[in-house]
Amino acid sequence: MVQYVGVEHLVGLISKVGIREILKGMAGYIEADFRRWEAFEKTPRIGSHSPQGVIELMPTSDGRHFSFKYVNGHPCNTRRGLQTVTAFGVLSDVESGYPLFLSEMTITTALRTAATSALVARLLARPGSRSMALIGLGAQSEFQALAFQALLGIDRLRVFDIDPAAIRKFKANLRDQGFEIFVAGSAREAVRGADIITTVTADKQKATILSDEMVGAGVHINAVGGDCPGKTELHPDLLRRADVFVEFPEQTRIEGEIQQMEPDFPVTEIWRVIAGQAPGRVSERQITLFDSVGFATEDFSALRYVSDQVQGTEFFADIDLLAEPDDPRNLFGLLLPGMALRHVVAELAA
Amino acid sequence: MVQYVGVEHLVGLISKVGIREILKGMAGYIEADFRRWEAFEKTPRIGSHSPQGVIELMPTSDGRHFSFKYVNGHPCNTRRGLQTVTAFGVLSDVESGYPLFLSEMTITTALRTAATSALVARLLARPGSRSMALIGLGAQSEFQALAFQALLGIDRLRVFDIDPAAIRKFKANLRDQGFEIFVAGSAREAVRGADIITTVTADKQKATILSDEMVGAGVHINAVGGDCPGKTELHPDLLRRADVFVEFPEQTRIEGEIQQMEPDFPVTEIWRVIAGQAPGRVSERQITLFDSVGFATEDFSALRYVSDQVQGTEFFADIDLLAEPDDPRNLFGLLLPGMALRHVVAELAA
Repeated sequence: MVQYVGVEHLVGLISKVGIREILKGMAGYIEADFRRWEAFEKTPRIGSHSPQGVIELMPTSDGRHFSFKYVNGHPCNTRRGLQTVTAFGVLSDVESGYPLFLSEMTITTALRTAATSALVARLLARPGSRSMALIGLGAQSEFQALAFQALLGIDRLRVFDIDPAAIRKFKANLRDQGFEIFVAGSAREAVRGADIITTVTADKQKATILSDEMVGAGVHINAVGGDCPGKTELHPDLLRRADVFVEFPEQTRIEGEIQQMEPDFPVTEIWRVIAGQAPGRVSERQITLFDSVGFATEDFSALRYVSDQVQGTEFFADIDLLAEPDDPRNLFGLLLPGMALRHVVAELAA
Repeated sequence: MVQYVGVEHLVGLISKVGIREILKGMAGYIEADFRRWEAFEKTPRIGSHSPQGVIELMPTSDGRHFSFKYVNGHPCNTRRGLQTVTAFGVLSDVESGYPLFLSEMTITTALRTAATSALVARLLARPGSRSMALIGLGAQSEFQALAFQALLGIDRLRVFDIDPAAIRKFKANLRDQGFEIFVAGSAREAVRGADIITTVTADKQKATILSDEMVGAGVHINAVGGDCPGKTELHPDLLRRADVFVEFPEQTRIEGEIQQMEPDFPVTEIWRVIAGQAPGRVSERQITLFDSVGFATEDFSALRYVSDQVQGTEFFADIDLLAEPDDPRNLFGLLLPGMALRHVVAELAA
């Protein structure tokens, strides 16, 4: 049997464990897997493009487990009441090739993206950072806010969205969650004085959410929204002024903010910082920038985490996704009872 | 919700509809999709290799639906009581990117492979073919026999396997199914006088199940077992003597029997024969050979077929693989009831 975690299971798990504990726990798994980066089989995601969007498969393996995530990106879905991004994933046993665990990953992707953002900011933001500007209050925004609160103690938010409904939704969702929320009238106003800036807009086009002169010395930028070819949020001048950290350069140069830059634009792989092989922040005045596009190993870590958490709980179901004949060479034997029954039914009818 | 077809659902469907009807129906879908071959996005499968085997993802799309199959190949699994090959697949809506349908594909792969074999043999075998040699009586053998019976009227089988237990299993499974079964003492004896030869052994190594002098004029060979690098069943001389038909040359040259041949070894794409763009069999004495490795479009067709068949029946379940918030920008809203409940529980406990 394969263990299945649906949306209801996951919501139940989050409700029981608490979202901050989940974010911290998941960040721990992501960090541990980044530390052993070289153990993973890495390949850029495989995309099937259409005029409406893209469907991607993101596989990886550490030699013991294999995982892949199915994820779509359809910017126009919102107009039809559908989500821009939905996802699910599978964790398998490399030795047998058998899938072990199938899970929803729409919520899980929002969790792992936020956990990764906060984990990286904990390494790169100025010590003592208290306030964060959050630009773009869509589906991922609350997860980002809570991850930064849980992992860095960020409790002052300066937020902006062009859509008043999104602002209302965000404020209502995070009411009584320990945040002091200032709603800014523009992105420029939002970033003023913030220690950390998170951009997570859903624009499909090249946009300039942040330009160079808006950002002061010492800030850490968590750029989450630019995540496919043609979709960026930052001005190139800002990228040049900052020290840029990425997950997997081969993928980020295609999908991230640095798609705007020359192919050899210098970046630091974040796993090196996590593993202590490269410096993170080196001065108070440095601008650090995490050009986050999301990588398959983070989904691997998130699946491992959710799988470990649900063991022994009611938050999963066993499903018969795999045929398991007693004799593996006798797959056909699974059909015999039904064929015999059919025969009896036919004889009775005759 | 996503529609889920597990093993029990599929076994129920087969029991109700009948396996021959299923094989004929599936062959119809496969044929229809081969006819519009150029509508499909085609890419060789993506494999993750380990010392024990391989895990593969096989995606394709016709612009309206996207599908992928997860399939493993672990030759040593049998020793541990596990299957060499297990699979599942997903069918999605390209316009929204949403997965629609998730199904077991271990049994479905055996069905679609057999349906494809028989569909191709109907085009390439000599008219009036009655007997088939079947070499290799493993997990796929009964499906092959039934597909050839259902689509071509083959009712005389000359079978061989090196394992007496496999022979016993095969005979028991196909008892009372309208076959005259002759058990040969060798592959050489099995092929003697047969109109069609199907090789479907599970050997991982390069093997020579069929050598050139074993095969008489006019025979159609259905070579199913050679399906990964290093795994072949036929002698190169036989390949040279035959006219070879393949699914997707880019993939077959890596995985099929023709991996033994020079890179420009001449082959005919089977979809051209199906679409009437290339000749199939042109003479009574010609040896035709279908070098079958299985291609993603066949899985696409099989998923479409099963999906269409289960609508309105009890042979599927709706599962909550996708988060579906009322407001697509309010993914976080799904967590609020649980968080509120948690808050109440905490207050009550205090």
